Parts: sequence; C-alpha cells; structure tokens
Amino acid sequence: MNTIAVIGGGPAGYVAAIVAAQKGKQVTLIEQRVLGGTCLNEGCMPTKSLLESAEMAEKIKHAGRFGIRVPEQEVSIDWPGVQSYKNNIVEQLVMGIGFLMRKNKIKVLTGKARFVSQRQIAVKMDQGEEIVEADKIIIASGSEPMELPFAPFDGRWIIHSGHAMSLSAIPETLLIIGGGVIGCEFASIYSRMGCDVTVIEMADQILPGEDADIAGVLRDQLERTGVKILTATSLTSVDQQTKTVRFKNPDGSGEATAEIMLVAVGRMPRTAELQLDWAGVAFGKQGISVNGHMQTNVPHIYACGDVVGGIQLAHVAFHEGTVAALHACGLDAKANYRAVPRCIYTSPEIAGVGLTEKQARSQYGDVRIGEFPFSVNGKAIILGEAIGKVKVITEPEYNEILGVSIVGPRATELIGQGTVMIHGEMAADMMETFISAHPTLSEAVHEALLSAIGHAVHA
Amino acid sequence: MNTIAVIGGGPAGYVAAIVAAQKGKQVTLIEQRVLGGTCLNEGCMPTKSLLESAEMAEKIKHAGRFGIRVPEQEVSIDWPGVQSYKNNIVEQLVMGIGFLMRKNKIKVLTGKARFVSQRQIAVKMDQGEEIVEADKIIIASGSEPMELPFAPFDGRWIIHSGHAMSLSAIPETLLIIGGGVIGCEFASIYSRMGCDVTVIEMADQILPGEDADIAGVLRDQLERTGVKILTATSLTSVDQQTKTVRFKNPDGSGEATAEIMLVAVGRMPRTAELQLDWAGVAFGKQGISVNGHMQTNVPHIYACGDVVGGIQLAHVAFHEGTVAALHACGLDAKANYRAVPRCIYTSPEIAGVGLTEKQARSQYGDVRIGEFPFSVNGKAIILGEAIGKVKVITEPEYNEILGVSIVGPRATELIGQGTVMIHGEMAADMMETFISAHPTLSEAVHEALLSAIGHAVHA
Repeated sequence: MNTIAVIGGGPAGYVAAIVAAQKGKQVTLIEQRVLGGTCLNEGCMPTKSLLESAEMAEKIKHAGRFGIRVPEQEVSIDWPGVQSYKNNIVEQLVMGIGFLMRKNKIKVLTGKARFVSQRQIAVKMDQGEEIVEADKIIIASGSEPMELPFAPFDGRWIIHSGHAMSLSAIPETLLIIGGGVIGCEFASIYSRMGCDVTVIEMADQILPGEDADIAGVLRDQLERTGVKILTATSLTSVDQQTKTVRFKNPDGSGEATAEIMLVAVGRMPRTAELQLDWAGVAFGKQGISVNGHMQTNVPHIYACGDVVGGIQLAHVAFHEGTVAALHACGLDAKANYRAVPRCIYTSPEIAGVGLTEKQARSQYGDVRIGEFPFSVNGKAIILGEAIGKVKVITEPEYNEILGVSIVGPRATELIGQGTVMIHGEMAADMMETFISAHPTLSEAVHEALLSAIGHAVHA
Repeated sequence: MNTIAVIGGGPAGYVAAIVAAQKGKQVTLIEQRVLGGTCLNEGCMPTKSLLESAEMAEKIKHAGRFGIRVPEQEVSIDWPGVQSYKNNIVEQLVMGIGFLMRKNKIKVLTGKARFVSQRQIAVKMDQGEEIVEADKIIIASGSEPMELPFAPFDGRWIIHSGHAMSLSAIPETLLIIGGGVIGCEFASIYSRMGCDVTVIEMADQILPGEDADIAGVLRDQLERTGVKILTATSLTSVDQQTKTVRFKNPDGSGEATAEIMLVAVGRMPRTAELQLDWAGVAFGKQGISVNGHMQTNVPHIYACGDVVGGIQLAHVAFHEGTVAALHACGLDAKANYRAVPRCIYTSPEIAGVGLTEKQARSQYGDVRIGEFPFSVNGKAIILGEAIGKVKVITEPEYNEILGVSIVGPRATELIGQGTVMIHGEMAADMMETFISAHPTLSEAVHEALLSAIGHAVHA
C-alpha cells in the first residue's frame, strides 16, 4: 500500500501529492497541461496580476492627491507589458510547483489520464501511452468554464475567463454575462483599463452569494467607474453576426452590442474524459460524489477540488487535497467547511467567512449585527480608500461569531482575522479586551465586533 | 460618585472619556492643545500619511513593471501637496474625535490642567481659570520627545519627530539620531523623498526591540535605497555651528554633517506641569506608577497611556484608557499586555506580537521556529514586494503560539491574525486544519505556523 497516483496538478492535486509524499508514499502525478491548474494558469493568479496592473493605473490617476505630481495625460497602459508581467508571474509560480514536485520526489507525467481499471490509469503522452498502477488514486481533474447552451465559446467573440486573461488588446466594449465573482473581477479589470463594460446578471443582485448591502457597495463603485450593470436580467437571444445580445428584465427588454462577450456563468467539474465508469466511480452533473474523507464510492479512490463541485476555490482545493492525501495515507482527516474564506478581488475588495447575514438569519432567526464603516477608519482615510464596511454577525445567546463580511480596502487580507476567530470558535465578548494595532484597517474588524456586543468606541 | 475628569485628549484620554460616558458618568475632558494627542497630531497618523505619499512616489517609479507607462522624469514630489494631504487628514480625524465627544456628551475644556487637591484640577484657559472637581480623575497627559542633554531641540537644526512631520522643504541631507521605530520610519519617508539619510544607533542593530533577522531585512532594504546606517555608534560631540556631529564606533570614529538632525531617542512621560504632588500621586522618571487597574497610589486617581511609561503605543493607550475608565466606573477590568501588536510602518513594514525569538528563548529555552519567506508567496510576487518573511515561535510541549514576527508587505495588517491567535491562546496544531484564503499574503502566516509544527506544504 505504498503507491499513490494523483490525476491533475492544480491546487487540489499538487497539494495532495506533496502531503502524500511527505508521509512517505511513492507518488505519481499526472497533468495533461501545465502544473498549477486553473488557479495558477488561468484563474486566481493571472487575474490578480491583471487587477494589480489596473490598480496601479488607477492609483496613478490619484497620485496628485498624495502630493505626487504625474503628468496624467502622458500615463498610458502598455497592454503587452501588462500581459508579460502576468505571464512572467505565472511562469515563475509554475516553476515553483515544479520545484516542489522534485523536492518531494514526486514523479510527474505530462499526459491525459483515463481509468482502465480500479487501480490502473492509462496516461496518453506525446511519447506514447503508459499504464500507472497505484494502491490509492486521487482524482483532482478540476473544472472548466460552463457554456451557454445557445452560445458556445468560439474564443473570438464568445469567450470564457481563460481567454479573457490573454486578450490581444483591451477591447473598447465588453459584455460580461454573469455578475458572480469572475464576472465582477473582469468588470473591475477592464473598466479600469478604459474599456466600456456591461454586466448582465440573472439574479436580483451581483454576487448573489454575498449579502445585498455588501454587494451593493461594489455595485455603486463599479457604476461610478462607468460599468453598466443589469440585474434580474436574462438573455433572450445572441446574434454572433452583429455581436448583439437581446435581454429582458422587469423593466422590459433591450439589446447590447459589444466587441467581446465574456460568459462567466460558472464552472463545471471536468469528468468527461476520465472513463470513470471503468473504475466504477459514481459521478453526476455536480461532479464526483465524495464523503467527508474525500473518498468516492470506491474506497481507495478519492476526489478533491473543483471536480467534486461544492465550493470551487483554490484554498478549498488545498484543504480537500490535504484531507484526501492524509486519509489515503491511513491517517484520520475530514474536510471542514466551517471557516472557508471567500475573496473577491474587485475594487473595493470583498471578503467573507462563515455565514452571511442572510444565511445566519435563516438558520438562527435572531442574530446580532455589528458594523463599522471604513469612512471613519484612519488608515483607510490615509490610503484614500475610505469606502465600505465590516459587518460581524453574532449569535445572541453565546455571542458566537457566526460570520464576518468585509467590503473595502484590503478586505481579502483582513478576512484572515475573521477566519481565525471562526476557526477558533471564538465568542465576540472574548474580543472585547483585544488590542488591535493602530492605525490599521484591521481595527475596523475589532470595532465591528465591539459594536455587535454593544461596546463600540469609535463608531 | 458620578463625575470623572480626564486630563489629556489623546488615545488614552479620549477613549477613557468615551467609555466612562457610555457607562453613564458625567465626564469632563481637559486638553491643552488639540484633541487626538500626539498620535493624531504629530505621531502615528501624520507619519502614516507621509509614508503613504512616499510609497506612492516609490510605486510610480516601478509602474512600468506592471505595464503602466509613466514618463518617470516628469514625476516629482509636490512637498506642499504632501503636507496638505497630511494636514487635511489630521484635521478630519481631529474633527472626528470632536464629534465623538459631543455624541457622548463629554464636556471638553481647552486649557492646561494642574492638580490643586486630590479631587480638584485647576484648568488655565484663554478665558481664565476654572476649577474642575471630580469623584474620579484619569491622567492621560501623554509624553514628549526626549532631548539629548548636550544638544537640546532648537526646532531648526536639532529637531524632534513633531518638527519632522512639517518641514518646510525636503532637506537634502538628514541625520537621524536613533534607529528605533520613529527613526526608521523617518528614514523610510525621507530617503524615498530623495533625501540623503544617515541613521546613527547606539545598539548593535536598528530596532533593538525586534529580532536581529527581522530588523536585518529592513536594514538591507534601507541601505539598498541609499540610507547610511551606523549601529553600535555613539555621539561624541555635536557642533551646531557647522551642523556636524562626531561619533565613535568599534571601527573607529568619524563625523557627519547634515542640513537637519532629527533626534529620535525615545519619549518621556509628561508629568512636569501637573502638580502631581498636590494630589499626592507618586511618579518617577519612568512616569506615573500604576497597578493593573491603572490606579495610581491614590485609588480614585488613575493614569494611562504614555504617561505611565511601559509600551508607548496608541493602541496600548486605547486599552489602558478603557481599563482605567471601566475600573473607575466600578467595573472589573485589568490591563493585559500579552497580545500587544508592534507595528513599524517602514518599507518593508515590520510587525510583531507576543514574544520575539530572543525573548522566547530566554524565557522558555527550547522553542520551535517556523518561517515562510514572501519570495514564494504568490500575492507578494504579484504586488512586486516579495521581500521578507513570517516567523512563528511556538513552545514545543503544547505547541502554544508564543510570538509572530513579520517583515514584509502589509505586515501591519497581517499581524492582526497573529494577534487573534495569541489573544485566543491558540495552539499551533489547531491551525493545521485552518483554511487560508488564496492568493493572499496571509497564507504566509499559516505556512509559517505549519512549518513550526513540521507540516509545511509550500516551503
């Protein structure tokens, strides 16, 4: 029982491989493209690089306010430069994963995997096919962008997020179908790059997973920078010839024409080419079914990451990959989704952990809400980003911290504090004697907590 | 027992006043200058504003790397603009404190306070003297910059940090005596503003309160940007006429001439004009002596903030002010310095909480150290700030987290996570199943923790 094969070299797969190798297993990792998966090659990392460039362009516009003179009319975006900054980062990070593979003595095969039996995987490589046999198999094949059935991706007009990272030029007009995390991040990138962006979202609000007040702050800000947002709106037709979509919403119907249409309506588990039925692994449209140890119905076969559906985030994949590997190594491990941070890298950023207010109210009925606005946080004022707020949701009997939601500067880093609190099952009154560094944005988290228990000082 | 007088409107005093007012007391606050104290008027806030301007100037230099074209030779620092950005922020924040005073129905007297008895304070104001009588008195008179006995401040050549905030122009050369927090922050500000900076520090390293490896990262970075740093160096003479100091160190002796000499060798409690002896309050060179409830030897008189010596930080003052006010209101409250974050707003930033490695080794003997470098943290790479590291110190028997030290991007926000862990008395192995958002700088904190318990994945 000493060999483990991992299918997929993204966040779930490469972490599972490292953890298993560290526990003394002989690990083979099979990746059909490049190590790092979607996250590293066409997800988290490249978008964050584009966002950083957009942020830089935006910052420079306001440099005068900080007393730095910049001839604004001479500032311009060097799109190939933006792209090469991004590509260099991706390359560097991919190399880093390669280094970790070698360091942990993991055998990496570049090829397409398919099951040929419950313990055998055929890997189709450039140099021919190889059969990998293993005592335990971990499937981490990831996900791919979902298509609109009536408007399949053509990579030119109708594109997905993978394409949107690497456009040859900044389009003048961009239509984004879907106002979820990916749609909002790209709206935030391209609008700040000077593109005229329209977002169409079926739900009543953008970011339907977050509370309306939190998402509303982003909506206001996006609209202020010229993004047109249509919520409660669905497409009725797509005309590739004229690059026009027709839509309807409670206000009636209309049409929008754009140089490029980015479809960002979700991602679906990648199971099609694995021949899962040869191994008897059960799966459905939502992905491969697993238990808390990330075991499939075939006990020696595990699955983790986007391919199991659920929360499709890189850090959830890290966690699930770790759990799968530890359990496959005979150790006790169980996935725990209680304190999973959610990060949205827009401007302003949004982040949350635990329950949203809406979820908490439906689960607990009566809850307490503490809020603190960044408009009165000294550090936010100094940064020139005094927008948004921190919201803390507590349960009134034991003051348990149920959730933290943040919209505002550096929210994606600030959420770390809330994640520790919820992971540590802390009560809000325990934070009463807490000392928050001054001046920091973090103080807003503390103040929101104090407000939830009725002890706010600075609000 | 319903009246409380607070002497001083800085972080300790204004928070004490708010807390006491919220508990139903009639509060009078006496401030001789402007609400907000040193922190707000000539400390934390204005320096952070200057640092943000310096940061902006520095960022723009590297904008090309992110694909943003800026004609670098045409970028310049508009020093009056830098100053007015800072002054506007200070003004806005001072108004904020004024608003909190009115909201909490606190009576504010602008004047100089001195004790005339154990329950009476004479306040000398523009419009005459007033006697304030109170059941409880909270002294929060703050601190002032320490002088070199042989080189008193003249406000022109020999200046203190208060002067250094508001220089009429960026000096060409600046000599900073003292490589502590204040000295390093000003070195970081003025060197990035194009000034030629020399720092002279008596101890073997800059930032003697931090571990040598942490302070060393800052030293390297300051030297890289042209700051000259002399450690283990003491002054032997100061010549105001020629604007020259002579110094000696293990390498011999030398001299330095500079347009301005900033003395940043510490701050001393401000007790001189309070007539403390009229109230019988005991004090010494280190400030007013207090117990854990912030009570002086006269039980109805409290003292808090910089005037009691100890850790002279705004957030410690907030904490002590809260404790003093609660106890003065008859509630149970005790100061707790276990999880006090330390923040240094240089480039890169430094932050710590709990014990340093040096302190931990001397208290515990055997400790475990976990480290993670920002050079392999994806978010740090994207920010172009992949410098520094996170260090976690744990106790080997129970894996208790004893300290977290960070040098690197946004360290002052990241330390919030460590502060929650230490405040919550968490063990490092509890953080093994923690889920850190990806991609964030916070991941480095988690990875350092995993490394301390031998479970690093990405290192």
